[in-house]
Amino acid sequence: MAENFVESITNMEDDFAQWYTDIVKKAELVDYTGIKGCMVIRPAGYAIWENIQRELDRRFKETGVENCYLPMFIPESLLNKEKDHVEGFAPEVAWVTQGGGETLQERMCVRPTSETLFCDFYSHIVHSYRDLPKVYNQWCSVVRWEKTTRPFLRSMEFLWQEGHTIHATAEEAQARTEQMLNLYADFCEEFLAIPMVRGRKTDKEKFAGAEATYTIEALMHDGKALQSGTSHNFGDGFARAFGIQYTDKENKLVYAHQTSWGMTTRMIGAIIMVHGDNSGLVLPPLVAPVQAMIIPIQQKKEGVLDAAYALRDRLKATTRVKVDDTDKTPGFKFAEQEMRGIPVRIEIGPKDLANNQAVLVRRDTREKLVVSLDEIETKLAELLTTIQHDMLERARAHRDAHTYSATTMDEMKDIADNKPGFIKAMWCGDRACEDAIKEQAGVTSRCMPFAQEHLSDTCVCCGKKAKTLVYWGKAY
Amino acid sequence: MAENFVESITNMEDDFAQWYTDIVKKAELVDYTGIKGCMVIRPAGYAIWENIQRELDRRFKETGVENCYLPMFIPESLLNKEKDHVEGFAPEVAWVTQGGGETLQERMCVRPTSETLFCDFYSHIVHSYRDLPKVYNQWCSVVRWEKTTRPFLRSMEFLWQEGHTIHATAEEAQARTEQMLNLYADFCEEFLAIPMVRGRKTDKEKFAGAEATYTIEALMHDGKALQSGTSHNFGDGFARAFGIQYTDKENKLVYAHQTSWGMTTRMIGAIIMVHGDNSGLVLPPLVAPVQAMIIPIQQKKEGVLDAAYALRDRLKATTRVKVDDTDKTPGFKFAEQEMRGIPVRIEIGPKDLANNQAVLVRRDTREKLVVSLDEIETKLAELLTTIQHDMLERARAHRDAHTYSATTMDEMKDIADNKPGFIKAMWCGDRACEDAIKEQAGVTSRCMPFAQEHLSDTCVCCGKKAKTLVYWGKAY
Repeated sequence: MAENFVESITNMEDDFAQWYTDIVKKAELVDYTGIKGCMVIRPAGYAIWENIQRELDRRFKETGVENCYLPMFIPESLLNKEKDHVEGFAPEVAWVTQGGGETLQERMCVRPTSETLFCDFYSHIVHSYRDLPKVYNQWCSVVRWEKTTRPFLRSMEFLWQEGHTIHATAEEAQARTEQMLNLYADFCEEFLAIPMVRGRKTDKEKFAGAEATYTIEALMHDGKALQSGTSHNFGDGFARAFGIQYTDKENKLVYAHQTSWGMTTRMIGAIIMVHGDNSGLVLPPLVAPVQAMIIPIQQKKEGVLDAAYALRDRLKATTRVKVDDTDKTPGFKFAEQEMRGIPVRIEIGPKDLANNQAVLVRRDTREKLVVSLDEIETKLAELLTTIQHDMLERARAHRDAHTYSATTMDEMKDIADNKPGFIKAMWCGDRACEDAIKEQAGVTSRCMPFAQEHLSDTCVCCGKKAKTLVYWGKAY
Repeated sequence: MAENFVESITNMEDDFAQWYTDIVKKAELVDYTGIKGCMVIRPAGYAIWENIQRELDRRFKETGVENCYLPMFIPESLLNKEKDHVEGFAPEVAWVTQGGGETLQERMCVRPTSETLFCDFYSHIVHSYRDLPKVYNQWCSVVRWEKTTRPFLRSMEFLWQEGHTIHATAEEAQARTEQMLNLYADFCEEFLAIPMVRGRKTDKEKFAGAEATYTIEALMHDGKALQSGTSHNFGDGFARAFGIQYTDKENKLVYAHQTSWGMTTRMIGAIIMVHGDNSGLVLPPLVAPVQAMIIPIQQKKEGVLDAAYALRDRLKATTRVKVDDTDKTPGFKFAEQEMRGIPVRIEIGPKDLANNQAVLVRRDTREKLVVSLDEIETKLAELLTTIQHDMLERARAHRDAHTYSATTMDEMKDIADNKPGFIKAMWCGDRACEDAIKEQAGVTSRCMPFAQEHLSDTCVCCGKKAKTLVYWGKAY
């Protein structure tokens, strides 16, 4: 693989951040623009997002979600209606102050998130218990003014979906909040091959305006955590601020209960940092825009290209497959296919044709498999399933090997300084200890996991009675 | 159908604009917001857009289009790079002047269209003839500051797709421009059952910065025209303004050629105004989110609801079908199904069950068809095909019956005043005559159709030698 194409990638062990940047550029996922913090998502990157969208949207709709579209602008007075929410978001919004050649009487921000717009909308259409629930979602972009940005991980504008639901009861809202969190986690594990820790955020880390925020947290190659999806229960807080009341079955006027939940293009960053290697991107087969690249060997020899096309035509009913018939050398094509993270390479040349075979090469392990052309459909399908499975298991093993336990602050600091990964430690529930842990060990609380364990009786920080196990870590 | 639900719709003959507004509200397609000119697209409306998207996107990809995503902001200096383009769009943009709590050094507009961003992007990635063509598209929303707005037809923010391509030669760009225009027209006719006049815009009506703009024009119930999709050939004008040069096969540095083409949520307005009637929306089966609504009659009688569900389960493999099992009366359900434009109603009650039958009622003609439950899959599928076909033919007949010819200005003025529709008339090609026709008859040039006819030798306005046939009309 010693072609120029590859040589210019930084090794992740030398400089993880540069390795990441090299991949997003060399795999042609993004292009930078003249606007700081805004990127072009190029076709190779956007096709990954389209696959994420299609699968998430399918899973959403199975649970009764309906899509809609709300405006991208929020008038300042509307943003100001819920106190905690505006405090959380106002400092990081972009303001439109002029339009159609005139200065606006009231400035409008570009949505950083759309709770306030959905509340306004729901206040128009929810009147009776018969109108509930509404389980709506929109696919759109949002803008948050960020000082430091990284493609996919943190950008001024990013693509996401935001679900916003409204329910008759607190119980129903809570059930929906948890349902969507689990949907996200299952999606990430089954489709992106990224294992998740599911749990609840501490009050300090919860969403501005939420009663409770739930999160899924993944561990990257470098031992840093990535918050990958969140689901919020608002109780009736927004409903009170926006006056969303309905007449219940007893003809009483009561407030409704709401949730919201979102997942973003950040997941493309997660795929890179969980699965990528020093040759480039490694895509799980289910999310890969191209699952297998057929690379003809000695393609000018008679019959080779025709055989490659014939093979593609056979395979394309079941697999997203392409032929690289450019005039580059096979070595260059191999390197390019590796850089782009295409899960399987199919090599076919005169020798293979003579033997009625092709060579399948796994992107993830580089393992080679010589298969008969007679059974290549089944073998390829099996191989893609195996790769998808192995990638999840490998990511899980990495995550587990980099998850540590601490029962004292000295242990905590030592792990934080020397062993990148998650740190499990007991916590008393006090904000003061959460702040002290961040101050002393440089880690933040990632979540209070649903899967609780009893590591000790006392808080790792203050030594008082522990309330809960917390995952701590350095995070993107 | 004499339920409240329907009685409150204005007749289109009495007030076409109010009829339109009533439908978008009562069919729950949109909700108004506190931001003038911005609407909520509700699930019933958005599901139509999702079907349009899915089908257009499929057709795009068949021709080699790849999707990507560019930022929503354009720095002022970038917008200013192409002179005609900025003159066309600068007056109607929204400006972001503050972000993250600070005043920006350079204001940015929210994209009204993305030619300038694509040019900037292409200038980074196009260097050699090997990099061409790029046939890219994005699905997004854009903002244009409009004084008067109507849901779907003209709003400050709207959803669309914008294709932007770049080619080695002028011929290739021209071929792509025409290919996409024809793709749009075929899509509208085959999928939305809306016949189109295909043609070229006059210089006066072409897109800001284009060498040539092609358009498809539809005729609404009220005889007004709706520009439904446009495709622009930019020649190398933008490439020169943005310095997009590539090395050709002879190793010379030359400018590239570009196109762009777009279709918007406005098509939902077209569906309403071409197919709707005084009971509400009428959706062509292919674009209808729900194609058949099963309405149980006497649903409390034993076996009726079960039979309705069983029927749904049988039909759902081939049809988008639902059961209305709410506790509303059948009459109310009928009216609601009609208002929402669901193409077929399936009535099933105790009498039907006794006879092993169901009643299919067409939304478009109200025709009833009693069919045996044994062959309902085929009968329903056939009926949906027939409805789709008939709707196009009916729309074509209406369009043809409202297309007039004029050879003198007196005829032209008489038709414009008394016979809403398209007016075909010959034109000399001079801007002065185009302006005079607008001034005197109140109609604008819609297009110079591909299908030319020779109505007379002379321009309808000045009497000089005619160059081309033009479709004229009042337009949305």
